[in-house]
Amino acid sequence: MSNARTERDADERAPEVGELTPPDRTLMGPGPSDVHPRVLKAMSTPLVGHLDPSFVEIMDEVQELLRYTFRTDNRWTIPVSGTGSASMEAAIGNLVEPGDTMLVPTNGYFGGRMKSMAERAGGEVVEVSAPWGDPLDPVDVERAFDAHQPDVFGFVHAETSTGVLQPNVPELTDIAHDHDAFVIADCVTSLGGVEMRVDEWDVDVAYSGPQKCLSCPPGASPLTLNDRAMDKVLDREERPRSWYLDLSLLEGYWGDDRSYHHTAPITNVYALREALRLVAEEGIESRWARHRSVAGDLKAGLQNLGLEMNAPDEYWLPSLNAVQVPDGVDDGAVIDGLLDEYDLEIASGLGDLEGDIWRIGCMGYSARPKNVEYVLAALEDALAAQGHEA
Amino acid sequence: MSNARTERDADERAPEVGELTPPDRTLMGPGPSDVHPRVLKAMSTPLVGHLDPSFVEIMDEVQELLRYTFRTDNRWTIPVSGTGSASMEAAIGNLVEPGDTMLVPTNGYFGGRMKSMAERAGGEVVEVSAPWGDPLDPVDVERAFDAHQPDVFGFVHAETSTGVLQPNVPELTDIAHDHDAFVIADCVTSLGGVEMRVDEWDVDVAYSGPQKCLSCPPGASPLTLNDRAMDKVLDREERPRSWYLDLSLLEGYWGDDRSYHHTAPITNVYALREALRLVAEEGIESRWARHRSVAGDLKAGLQNLGLEMNAPDEYWLPSLNAVQVPDGVDDGAVIDGLLDEYDLEIASGLGDLEGDIWRIGCMGYSARPKNVEYVLAALEDALAAQGHEA
Repeated sequence: MSNARTERDADERAPEVGELTPPDRTLMGPGPSDVHPRVLKAMSTPLVGHLDPSFVEIMDEVQELLRYTFRTDNRWTIPVSGTGSASMEAAIGNLVEPGDTMLVPTNGYFGGRMKSMAERAGGEVVEVSAPWGDPLDPVDVERAFDAHQPDVFGFVHAETSTGVLQPNVPELTDIAHDHDAFVIADCVTSLGGVEMRVDEWDVDVAYSGPQKCLSCPPGASPLTLNDRAMDKVLDREERPRSWYLDLSLLEGYWGDDRSYHHTAPITNVYALREALRLVAEEGIESRWARHRSVAGDLKAGLQNLGLEMNAPDEYWLPSLNAVQVPDGVDDGAVIDGLLDEYDLEIASGLGDLEGDIWRIGCMGYSARPKNVEYVLAALEDALAAQGHEA
Repeated sequence: MSNARTERDADERAPEVGELTPPDRTLMGPGPSDVHPRVLKAMSTPLVGHLDPSFVEIMDEVQELLRYTFRTDNRWTIPVSGTGSASMEAAIGNLVEPGDTMLVPTNGYFGGRMKSMAERAGGEVVEVSAPWGDPLDPVDVERAFDAHQPDVFGFVHAETSTGVLQPNVPELTDIAHDHDAFVIADCVTSLGGVEMRVDEWDVDVAYSGPQKCLSCPPGASPLTLNDRAMDKVLDREERPRSWYLDLSLLEGYWGDDRSYHHTAPITNVYALREALRLVAEEGIESRWARHRSVAGDLKAGLQNLGLEMNAPDEYWLPSLNAVQVPDGVDDGAVIDGLLDEYDLEIASGLGDLEGDIWRIGCMGYSARPKNVEYVLAALEDALAAQGHEA
């Protein structure tokens, strides 16, 4: 067989895949949220190298903007090169050393993920219990500390699976610090949308994802550690079990050296920069207020449709509205109908709440009156089609 | 202090960061390479959800296109949600179990990274030696197998740090399989630019990055495993040490279930799809031929400037041209001059070759006559400024 023939044959086998034409969705699920046009435009910016002096400047700016958004002065504030679970594993996999004990919550999906990550890091895991749909009670946390003396305590500030906001954060961090433990806060669904003050509330480590209240495509995920936490990381006896997420190596790239570790996802960093600029322009506290206000209208509208919120008002999470599926209504049929007929994404429940709730996000650029009106109108139609009357 | 006052104060502290205006570089370094305008356009496409039926279709298409590009029918062919080092660690961290022995090369920067990842996975590491700038000799590989009986053998198909192409791949995989070992090939700088035939050459696991010969922004990185390798992964006694990169969990998302694991970097998957469509349109073998031909012109032009290639012709790597820095020329001054005066990126040597070579990429959309003519003209000027005459 001649070379020319081989080439032709191989080329003939090339898959025929058409132009990229995804549907034009309105994203009101648990993330990703609608991305601001300015951020999409940043994504199409031609690349510079990941060690280019101009990129080093961009890295500095992103770090500064992240600090503002986290409300922290932490030096170790970086985007991790992966999606939210990568920043989560960077936090847990570096802070938890073999032999350490980590206390994790049971009141939602993401406490279970914390457990799995801590175990893989070589840690022991103990739990503080609360039902899915409730926040942690500081009394239970204190009791768990007294019983187990954990080294690290993880909690979920905004539980995406249940739509519950954890109140009393400073109370939780006080308990942990009174017991000489470190606190890791999962801020995936709160950063940039719901009040979180890393320094004032004395959170040692916090991580997030960009595709929630920051309305940025996923791929570079916020992480911040205070000096005390970073000292523990840098003093580890055994290297972290992931090379990719080893913060002592990432320190070389994001710290003063700017030495090569891995190729950063340049475009995702561009996008995060633009998304964070939008946060700074709006002002972080105004942004929190907008989420409360717009999601408040959503909540009122849902209640007007005769629906009940899953979380009591005091734990209501503006960025993720968990609403109960009424008796006799097929939750999946409503979700599919909204997607097919309205190009509108909302989500079902996860884990313990599967089938019981819908999850309606109200995050970042999706937290707009336009989106809220649309989701309420579409949901009213879809419920009526199922025989449910407001 | 009133709430209004607090808000204003916080907002006043917001960092002032201007519009994103990076310089317009021509990227002829070791990656990222210039990104095709169609791929940049794909990056600015509005997002759908990561579990949207339309995204599941896109995932299928990307997998099919990746199989074509890797020349494989492997079912387990996916983009890993991170940059090339993430797909590298996904390969090593899943295949290497505690107690396994991995054989790694010493002839470049990335063998050292393999070693670190294998050790963190709980493996023992043994080495097969060759100087930086040489490929592995099959005789040495055979000898290392006889001496150490490793379970896993990793080699670098295209060494980005030295500009050396590893020939005799089928010979290496035969040796490994005769010793019942698995083969992992680092194809970061070869996939889509230099001949690599995963199935025909009997490579068990191969990984790559998107920002080299695929000319796609980094963030979602190709990985393929054959059934035999995936069986080892799924039969592990101990879970892999990274949750984020656990292939048994990723199987749930990219396999038949399409169940939630983590939020995929949707936009990066869009971009990869477009970059791979360009591969399919050109035809993989034509693309390899283009890289040989355009990089051949680059090599000839460099030699016309009186420069010597670092690798002998038989190991020459078209996608990464390592060229010796002439005596009396300051390598860093040339690099900085090209960047400052020509908006042109080339790179210095790494590790053992630091200061001795320049690395000039010729990858994907950067492998064009236009780019080659530009880099040759600019380099001629820069060398003349240093007193070097062709």
